[in-house]
Amino acid sequence: MQQNTLLSSLKSVDDIASLSYDDKEELAEDIRRQILDTVSKTGGHLAPNLGVVELTIALLSVFDVPRDTIVFDVGHQCYAWKMLTGRLDMFSTLRQKDGLSGFPKREESPYDAFNTGHSSTSISACAGIARAKRLRGDTSRTVALIGDGAIENGLALEALSDIGEHEDNVMVVLNDNQMCIDRAAGGIANHLEHLRTSTRYLRMKPLWERRLNKIPIIGPSLVRQLARMKRRWRTYRRESSVLFEQLGFRYYGPIDGHDLRELERHLQALCLVRGPVLLHVITQKGKGYAPAEKHPEDYHGVSAFDPEKGVTGGNIGNESTFSDVFGNTIIDIASEHQDVAVIVAAMTRGTGLSHFAERYPDRFWDVGIAEEHAVTMAAGMASAGMRPVVALYSTFLQRAFDEMLHDVCLQNLSVIFAVDRAGLVGGDGDTHQGLYDLAYALKLPNLTVFAPATAPDLRKTLKWAVQHDGPVLIRYPRSEAPSADIFQMTDMTNVRRHTIAFEHEGHGAWTDEADAIFSLRHMLSGNDLTVVALGPCVSEALQACRRIMSDESGYSIELFSCLCAMPFDYKSVIHSIHKTNKLLIIEDSVERGGFGSMVVAEIARRCPDCLVNYAGVTHLTRGAASRKELIALEQLDASGLEKRMLHLIEVAGAARSALCAWS
Amino acid sequence: MQQNTLLSSLKSVDDIASLSYDDKEELAEDIRRQILDTVSKTGGHLAPNLGVVELTIALLSVFDVPRDTIVFDVGHQCYAWKMLTGRLDMFSTLRQKDGLSGFPKREESPYDAFNTGHSSTSISACAGIARAKRLRGDTSRTVALIGDGAIENGLALEALSDIGEHEDNVMVVLNDNQMCIDRAAGGIANHLEHLRTSTRYLRMKPLWERRLNKIPIIGPSLVRQLARMKRRWRTYRRESSVLFEQLGFRYYGPIDGHDLRELERHLQALCLVRGPVLLHVITQKGKGYAPAEKHPEDYHGVSAFDPEKGVTGGNIGNESTFSDVFGNTIIDIASEHQDVAVIVAAMTRGTGLSHFAERYPDRFWDVGIAEEHAVTMAAGMASAGMRPVVALYSTFLQRAFDEMLHDVCLQNLSVIFAVDRAGLVGGDGDTHQGLYDLAYALKLPNLTVFAPATAPDLRKTLKWAVQHDGPVLIRYPRSEAPSADIFQMTDMTNVRRHTIAFEHEGHGAWTDEADAIFSLRHMLSGNDLTVVALGPCVSEALQACRRIMSDESGYSIELFSCLCAMPFDYKSVIHSIHKTNKLLIIEDSVERGGFGSMVVAEIARRCPDCLVNYAGVTHLTRGAASRKELIALEQLDASGLEKRMLHLIEVAGAARSALCAWS
Repeated sequence: MQQNTLLSSLKSVDDIASLSYDDKEELAEDIRRQILDTVSKTGGHLAPNLGVVELTIALLSVFDVPRDTIVFDVGHQCYAWKMLTGRLDMFSTLRQKDGLSGFPKREESPYDAFNTGHSSTSISACAGIARAKRLRGDTSRTVALIGDGAIENGLALEALSDIGEHEDNVMVVLNDNQMCIDRAAGGIANHLEHLRTSTRYLRMKPLWERRLNKIPIIGPSLVRQLARMKRRWRTYRRESSVLFEQLGFRYYGPIDGHDLRELERHLQALCLVRGPVLLHVITQKGKGYAPAEKHPEDYHGVSAFDPEKGVTGGNIGNESTFSDVFGNTIIDIASEHQDVAVIVAAMTRGTGLSHFAERYPDRFWDVGIAEEHAVTMAAGMASAGMRPVVALYSTFLQRAFDEMLHDVCLQNLSVIFAVDRAGLVGGDGDTHQGLYDLAYALKLPNLTVFAPATAPDLRKTLKWAVQHDGPVLIRYPRSEAPSADIFQMTDMTNVRRHTIAFEHEGHGAWTDEADAIFSLRHMLSGNDLTVVALGPCVSEALQACRRIMSDESGYSIELFSCLCAMPFDYKSVIHSIHKTNKLLIIEDSVERGGFGSMVVAEIARRCPDCLVNYAGVTHLTRGAASRKELIALEQLDASGLEKRMLHLIEVAGAARSALCAWS
Repeated sequence: MQQNTLLSSLKSVDDIASLSYDDKEELAEDIRRQILDTVSKTGGHLAPNLGVVELTIALLSVFDVPRDTIVFDVGHQCYAWKMLTGRLDMFSTLRQKDGLSGFPKREESPYDAFNTGHSSTSISACAGIARAKRLRGDTSRTVALIGDGAIENGLALEALSDIGEHEDNVMVVLNDNQMCIDRAAGGIANHLEHLRTSTRYLRMKPLWERRLNKIPIIGPSLVRQLARMKRRWRTYRRESSVLFEQLGFRYYGPIDGHDLRELERHLQALCLVRGPVLLHVITQKGKGYAPAEKHPEDYHGVSAFDPEKGVTGGNIGNESTFSDVFGNTIIDIASEHQDVAVIVAAMTRGTGLSHFAERYPDRFWDVGIAEEHAVTMAAGMASAGMRPVVALYSTFLQRAFDEMLHDVCLQNLSVIFAVDRAGLVGGDGDTHQGLYDLAYALKLPNLTVFAPATAPDLRKTLKWAVQHDGPVLIRYPRSEAPSADIFQMTDMTNVRRHTIAFEHEGHGAWTDEADAIFSLRHMLSGNDLTVVALGPCVSEALQACRRIMSDESGYSIELFSCLCAMPFDYKSVIHSIHKTNKLLIIEDSVERGGFGSMVVAEIARRCPDCLVNYAGVTHLTRGAASRKELIALEQLDASGLEKRMLHLIEVAGAARSALCAWS
């Protein structure tokens, strides 16, 4: 859809300011239509973008961008911004391979001042930008647009405190839609609710006043009483705003975020204020699209859908994705283990835990966007004898790296990390890839690391984890969870069971069942190459092996699936390479210094005769694409892996010294 | 010193509560004497411990530990606690190898409820502990003892907000000594200052009142005026406390943290309060030892010193440690580069930046204990054209891992990370080791990573970094910085210069000077083994090589010093192993999946004929010891390395397949 609209007729960003308010309202309509039209085809963040259309128009009307700097927190609400700053033509490519990013990107446009994706960075970034401007005498404005969920995060609070201390010229526009992705949690959320309710009364007042004054005799007295109450409310509101005021910000608002006149009037007035200032703006998530207004949590991030019908029920109750399997399994586990509690950071639905939250409200904690607190709190729970499960996306767990190490792993506490969206993740681009968790987790003391390939794997490892003393990390991708069929189709006649020589701190003796979890799984027998595929990589690896084994070359490959990355079953590998003398490790994480590199280095020092290679993700800053596309781009699909396998088998015939191609 | 004191006569923790206040004051004296006596011999945290003696006695008098849970934030103020909970006899072993840890350790005593070391974890931990207790109907108390510096950190603020929302039974005792390690910064510090000053007036008032009342006529009127002022102050104070109140805490205080009666009275009263409560206690850092009272920042963490003389001037102006070299070099750089600014997180002195802070106050930012904000703010500065240098200890940089990745490296912004206390760190134990920075930094996109071995190395890399477009990390240990002599003593006749085949994203062509930074430095020539020693490991490696080359074996070793860990100079290694066919990598970081593992894996896939090994730190949870002791324990000293080198040379003669010792 690219109709002849006011939106499409805009020639330049500068035209926006001179539009009448009526035109701006029409423009807002156009933008909403375009957002709905595109996102219902491409998928993306719908409700957050519908909520900030007027706010975006007002910011572009009042500020002189890109001289003035506007930083979008998280950045998933930048669609209107992108359309209005020269990227309307590309908008249909949103979140597609080689298309427009769903987040601000400096490399896309000078109007995108700072790349975001993770929550709560905008105020810190603005502190830095404002200080740089101060040093060079640049008087342009610096504005952070941040949501009520994001402002609760520790990083944002640190930034507010620091800016307050140094009186930087930073304006924080608090986009308060009364929920982060699921719902705002925490004392700060309560505080914002105070601010909202106090003013809700004030807004209603003129209407009451007119009506009351019509009542004879008693009416005017009631109005006087109301005026007194109003003063009291004002005082209360002033006191309520003390949280921000005490941090050193001048607080204004709350105002209606869909009223363009009110928005522009306030933004203009606050441009004259020097020093830190916070404008509290109330918006409605999903504004203008009835289903999203009604159920904004269903329309936060969506896949393609029919706008007439709205998004359908989704995966409730079924077992199609790893997230679903996790959600269902943890309900089963909680029914047996009273000491199991679950902690999430504003991602109840995304991590598959909506049912758990309903079933076990007293053992479910959504701490809001506060990953660090989630992990250290879990450590506290474990120190007091519970078995907390922290469910986070891989990319967000990064923010709690120190807490994982310092509070959980060094103390060897029994915390389970359920890491969703691990490995390559489609749609969101470089900021949301789960490429690092495995690499850093392998270094942490006492931590056991699993990478399930199937639904039964995930269930089995979770059940093992709740009875293990010590921290366990289980990582799985954002994808369908295959059933165990993938293994039944393969040659399982000579599955070996053995006890692993254990080099991992903090583990006791294992049962037979545990042994099966820790051992590499033998999937194909062969003599020419040993392949170890980590967790979800096994499916493409299996296809690649089958292709090679069914062609005329006569090569046979011994394929293992690796469920447990740490401690790693070196014994099975060494047993196999005695036959093959060639080893390839496949993973869906950062290749440099990652899992494959760790295994290969160890094998190289133990078995120097073996030819080795490892395949992982090498391009870490790639833009958005689907998970399938990303796997192909990284040559981790069946045909890419087939080439690597054949290369390793065939170079083995050549003189080894010739391999030193780099010298 | 183990005199017959009240302290030494205590049989049990339970005895404390029944002592008279006079006895408790005598006990406090004993404890202070013991702390001063021990710490002046062993080194350790002096001023923080002297400040909380009465508070510790009061906590042990009022609470029923270990049933009630007390969590010490940071934990560097637990010395009195350790003495009073059964560890007086061991106190002289403080921070020594196999001795008492300087931090709380669950493995030492049931009285240590939660291990700490890093700042600001206690409130989150208490949230978890209190929730675990709530679920099992345990009504015992949960108390976090946290300083005014630590409560500013994002993690603590997240926890306050979450506890406020859920009304957990957590008591926060805010130990306000008006400074974190250097000084408290931030809007929250200002807020605490408000709370303090408001009450300072209130405390002085009775004295004034008595004096004023003696003045004829005008006196009583002044007293009445004062009474009005007092009411105003009270209101003000109530409003001031709104920050904590708004987060959902009941706020009490501030009270005198050296007045045992006042402390116990408040703690007892607050035991009856359900829900979140915060008691604001004012203490004096260094209390009872005059030099420390006067200059608490000099006595925060100390090495052994003469208590009669106090600590001496220290390293001001000289160039003995890497921190000093960094501090001096960055002053030189700032004089030439107007765009260079420095950011620290409450570690101005520790990072060697006291002089810089004086010389360039407008380009120096101490953000308080807020590492995440420090790094994202630096990204903001860099996005606005500056060259920020973030100076942090390796162990604390961990808390900003996501910000390094998401805000700096993915955006390829020109932020310089000056990482002090990298590698093995003496004294503090496992929580303060700098063992992980290198391992995770190697995976980050666009990041250049240096590990200087000498003072000139550090100067050279810093100067290169400020003119490089992209992020740079420079890591160095807490140790003396050797001069370049270490290299002049070696065979430098055949130093090779070449251009490295560059596999690292985001780098352009290099100058000759840059080339010298990136190339491995050739230090010894040899034919039997190639050794690459990372940065500070080169000194022990050189000794080991010399020993071998001077004995009767006739072996010769080619030794390289590695300054640049990423991008790594594979070309020089491959050139050398053509001769030697054997490679050993030495680093002072986590061995599993670290730098050596990365290099060895890459060499193994390129040059399969080469015998490889790598040596790093394998024991990650070791207790306190000196850096020298730790290096020896990890067999990274000259004699340990000599053994590894000989092993690699000599097994080469044996059949290679025999190496598969694990199969």
